[in-house]
Amino acid sequence: MCGIFAYINYLEPKTRKEILDFLITGLQRLEYRGYDSAGLAFDGPLGETEIIKQKGKVAVLSQEIWSRENLNFEETCNAHVGIAHTRWATHGAPSAINSHPQRSDDDKQEFVVVHNGIITNFKEIKQFLMNKGFTFESETDTEAIAKLIKHIHDKHPDFTFRELVEQVTLQLEGAFALVFKSYLYPGQCVATRRGSPLLIGIKPKSPLFSNHIPVLFSHKDLVQQKDIAHSALARAKLQRSNSTTEFTPITDHAEVEYFYASDASAFIEHTNRVIFLEDDDVAVIENGRLSIHRIRKDLSDKSPLTREIITLKLEIQEIMKGNFSSFMQKEIFEQPESVVNTMRGRVNFDTETVILGGIKDYIPEIKRCRRLIMIGCGTSYYSAVATRIIVQQLTELPVMVELASDFLDSEGPVYRDDVCFFISQSGETADTLMALRYCKQRGALIVGVTNTVGSSICRESHCGIHINAGPEIGVASTKAYTSQFISLVMFGLVLSEDRISMRPRRSEIINGLKLLPDQIKSVLKVDDQVKAIAEELYTRESIMIMGRGYNHATCLEGALKIKELTYIPSEGVLAGELKHGPLALVDEGMPVVMIVTRDKVYTKCINAVQQVLARGGRPIIICEQDDIETQGMSYKNLGIPHSVDCLQGVLTVVPLQLLAYHIAVLRGCNVDCPRNLAKSVTVE
Amino acid sequence: MCGIFAYINYLEPKTRKEILDFLITGLQRLEYRGYDSAGLAFDGPLGETEIIKQKGKVAVLSQEIWSRENLNFEETCNAHVGIAHTRWATHGAPSAINSHPQRSDDDKQEFVVVHNGIITNFKEIKQFLMNKGFTFESETDTEAIAKLIKHIHDKHPDFTFRELVEQVTLQLEGAFALVFKSYLYPGQCVATRRGSPLLIGIKPKSPLFSNHIPVLFSHKDLVQQKDIAHSALARAKLQRSNSTTEFTPITDHAEVEYFYASDASAFIEHTNRVIFLEDDDVAVIENGRLSIHRIRKDLSDKSPLTREIITLKLEIQEIMKGNFSSFMQKEIFEQPESVVNTMRGRVNFDTETVILGGIKDYIPEIKRCRRLIMIGCGTSYYSAVATRIIVQQLTELPVMVELASDFLDSEGPVYRDDVCFFISQSGETADTLMALRYCKQRGALIVGVTNTVGSSICRESHCGIHINAGPEIGVASTKAYTSQFISLVMFGLVLSEDRISMRPRRSEIINGLKLLPDQIKSVLKVDDQVKAIAEELYTRESIMIMGRGYNHATCLEGALKIKELTYIPSEGVLAGELKHGPLALVDEGMPVVMIVTRDKVYTKCINAVQQVLARGGRPIIICEQDDIETQGMSYKNLGIPHSVDCLQGVLTVVPLQLLAYHIAVLRGCNVDCPRNLAKSVTVE
Repeated sequence: MCGIFAYINYLEPKTRKEILDFLITGLQRLEYRGYDSAGLAFDGPLGETEIIKQKGKVAVLSQEIWSRENLNFEETCNAHVGIAHTRWATHGAPSAINSHPQRSDDDKQEFVVVHNGIITNFKEIKQFLMNKGFTFESETDTEAIAKLIKHIHDKHPDFTFRELVEQVTLQLEGAFALVFKSYLYPGQCVATRRGSPLLIGIKPKSPLFSNHIPVLFSHKDLVQQKDIAHSALARAKLQRSNSTTEFTPITDHAEVEYFYASDASAFIEHTNRVIFLEDDDVAVIENGRLSIHRIRKDLSDKSPLTREIITLKLEIQEIMKGNFSSFMQKEIFEQPESVVNTMRGRVNFDTETVILGGIKDYIPEIKRCRRLIMIGCGTSYYSAVATRIIVQQLTELPVMVELASDFLDSEGPVYRDDVCFFISQSGETADTLMALRYCKQRGALIVGVTNTVGSSICRESHCGIHINAGPEIGVASTKAYTSQFISLVMFGLVLSEDRISMRPRRSEIINGLKLLPDQIKSVLKVDDQVKAIAEELYTRESIMIMGRGYNHATCLEGALKIKELTYIPSEGVLAGELKHGPLALVDEGMPVVMIVTRDKVYTKCINAVQQVLARGGRPIIICEQDDIETQGMSYKNLGIPHSVDCLQGVLTVVPLQLLAYHIAVLRGCNVDCPRNLAKSVTVE
Repeated sequence: MCGIFAYINYLEPKTRKEILDFLITGLQRLEYRGYDSAGLAFDGPLGETEIIKQKGKVAVLSQEIWSRENLNFEETCNAHVGIAHTRWATHGAPSAINSHPQRSDDDKQEFVVVHNGIITNFKEIKQFLMNKGFTFESETDTEAIAKLIKHIHDKHPDFTFRELVEQVTLQLEGAFALVFKSYLYPGQCVATRRGSPLLIGIKPKSPLFSNHIPVLFSHKDLVQQKDIAHSALARAKLQRSNSTTEFTPITDHAEVEYFYASDASAFIEHTNRVIFLEDDDVAVIENGRLSIHRIRKDLSDKSPLTREIITLKLEIQEIMKGNFSSFMQKEIFEQPESVVNTMRGRVNFDTETVILGGIKDYIPEIKRCRRLIMIGCGTSYYSAVATRIIVQQLTELPVMVELASDFLDSEGPVYRDDVCFFISQSGETADTLMALRYCKQRGALIVGVTNTVGSSICRESHCGIHINAGPEIGVASTKAYTSQFISLVMFGLVLSEDRISMRPRRSEIINGLKLLPDQIKSVLKVDDQVKAIAEELYTRESIMIMGRGYNHATCLEGALKIKELTYIPSEGVLAGELKHGPLALVDEGMPVVMIVTRDKVYTKCINAVQQVLARGGRPIIICEQDDIETQGMSYKNLGIPHSVDCLQGVLTVVPLQLLAYHIAVLRGCNVDCPRNLAKSVTVE
């Protein structure tokens, strides 16, 4: 939920100002992961560790930094380690004291650490350390980590920085990505992860001489020891086993800059060479050399023996806002292109065939399955709801859709002949990832549907569909939703390719897909009309959104967008359930947005419209642009083009995205960073 | 959705005042089915048909009637037909003109009719009649029926009243229960149904000489003719086939009173002898004789050849409010008894066995099934959500829960080895009933879970569980929910009876069931505390209710109660989804009710509490009464006893029922008849 960033330069002289600039810019790129407070740690003019932290967004931190007077901004550092953090509160309210970096002590600040994730056993560790005489200043779980490393160091002053971090991680339970800095180990920066994402960016001056870094095992033959005090013998062995295998991808003592970050957008303007760390990797940067360690090699460890340096093709402009006032607005308007990217190279409109390279080899296995289970959280879950009917129809398999957290709570039966889809834009959503592991353990076939190559869900799936929507920065998902939607429809098309009786239906859908990009463009033209409606609604206390059949998910997703962005309570109501309760809410004052398209449930939807009208409600109807009859019943209406029933949801959701956006702007809300929310929810 | 009532006396002299009193009281008993307007038709002092209709509840109609001066209330009628109706608007806003009875003409009011249901082809019929010169006064679908019968009568003046009604029903599509009166056929009252419920109550002075009424077939050998004009030959045959089979359950010319009603509560104070009509039955009362007709006998008709006169054991006091201010409050406080009734004779706490007589014979078949599908609407659906985890756990079968309307829209695959549960308090919920038929057609085993013996769902199921909660009059379901909950848990217990590994779990649950009645009593003691909280919340603009795991359904159900009764928008949020959107709504002002009990997801719930606290929220926590730690985090709390995890939902829902009740009272809402809603939703 938080964003981690670190910058390490070696023999590449930078002024303190430049270093701080890098850290601030990196943090700003990660703000979509959390933005309630921020902080950083760097070397001060006297070689001491300086920490600056502020409540609020990174801009507030930046202001504070440049207002400091005794930092000697122009001094050049030949080799330097700076760490930084933007926070989304889980333990303790947003405040400077709860921000990261957290420190081991308030005297010399020997160890400082930034953390993304949640330590579930921090209370026990904290109690242990308080018994040892430590006093705590914050409410965070992270502070226990900073104090614990100092405690181990105090007991074992001869341990290396890496050994200290390894000892710390042995004590931690929960999810984390951590980056440590210590003035006791100048020029060293040690990082590790378990559950939360962490990448290394490498920017060497001379060419790399290898694209693979071998993993070093600290502890090949010893059983893992869970106690903090560590036998001298074991330690001696650890040292021995390490001494000869140190490695660096670049020539010794060459100029190099390194970055640690929660994702690549933070440093992509500097380098596109990255390493994705695996769970429990410990990465050490020391005097320009990078090495990756694991405490021990055992049989259950399936991670590869090297870490590959990957060249990313992410462009910096892809993550910039362009002419739009916010990333979200930009991403809404990108949808005519992003849906094309989702289909590119996959749907052949001439031959009416669909190929999904990522699951091709698994099609026979999928066809033999007993049922499909689609699992996600929030918007990703709604994309499953949106496509459930058509996937069920095309595959002729029963399809279940499940909220990841609920699925985990209920510990439902999963069988070897189930196929489970895990849908997550970031590919790092903690609940979805844990549901994946639950199903994988039970032998189900795992299909990942993500927008992020190299993400945890990608790596832990048997096969997958990359939705290819491009980076999504706005916290409220828009283009990822439509691309997830289309990806799942394409999956249905692939599964039905061999069925003669399905041909007319497939033809119809594939033709529908072809028209979608232009149709989305045409939907976007209602922007001004939506704005006018937003002006009427933005002072309201709640908004009901109603539809059924293929448009049910659109209502849920539209209501979620309104809740997230405008903080107006909003509920997506299944029109068929109207009479079983929600109709009581309808009166002259209640804004009701209804989705009524000319599909099989049209008449039933019109019944719902009439019930709303009979109660004096004034429905704002999203309907087909030439459907005069339906428009005639509306108080206001938004016309959209006609598509195939099962694709109509891609078009009906866009006016609701725009509506949420405009209401949020009118209410003065920050659309890219809604309060309390973060882009990628990497804790349960 | 509407309530129909008719009273026919024959050789039992009554004054006009008595007759009108009967009609009004009958309507009042049916008000839970709809109460936006009401009306009745009876014979005036000159033998003409009088119609009185009013917008509003039955009390308003009653006032209007007694204010009339020229009705000669004391005149005695030896034989009389009176029909009455309380309405819940579907076509056309509530108003006197749209109320029933609807009439054939405004001159002599030749035919009048009351209707429950929706005629889907009324536009075509209306157009046809307008082309014939009829002018319409209301916006209802029903008016077309009244005009159509006159049209047929005008063309065929020699048709009997029954024949006219039969001709009319041949033209109708949709769902209906209809009762007709005409001054042209004095002493006759003809009724019919398709889809909507209709019962006959019989109160003879002398004993019945049979408990079975044979069904008469008007048209054994002719193909059904869909056109209105009917050949003379066919008609002659119809008459012939009827002439010799007329039948009456009582001796000719004996004194008798009859009632038609949408359910038995309307006339139970007069008689407990009832006949449930089947779809397409036409019931004729003429000079004290009752006969039941079907147009033709064909192969597809599976209805029995007689209609049984059943003796109901419903007591009048069961449907009275007692000492409570409303039925809903009474029903909330009845739950300690109603759950006992649900378990009575089924759970043996000594031997730890559970027997469900209604499904006993089907257990082996159910055990062999591929999956369980539980289908319902509104509260009934939430009872499925609430028990899904435990049913899945005990049966080791995958369990799907579906909203009936959504299930129908999606036309999902259903197989011969599926077992489908249909949950409905009334047993008449249209969507649930149609989903039942969809699944039955596909060969699935159908299990009904209802509170109403003889209801459509009961009759069309292969087997079933009667939840035995007693009549529920409050429109917002309370005791039916807890009884449905327990019924489904009992089903899980029955299915797991043979499993050794399940013994400890079953033991635990059966012991939990034993404690429940006393525990509910103890929960009801928080009533005053709940009232205090309601005083704080009743002016708020929305209320969020949050929980997860076994308590997720409680949140959904609690939020539904608040929506239905208080008209305050309220959403039940899965705590696991909090970070995926709803957390944006949380600030100092947003009331958040959280359910946190000491089960497997306790820690995760506490995480959610902490996130709410970190955003300045002030959570009202429903938790266990001795859980000091959790109470310490709350702004206010409601303590409830500890139960087994899977039964805790029976206890946590009660404070929310009370909360909705108290808020509604404080807001001056009618708790028994929330606006826009009706008890039994018998249209789609």
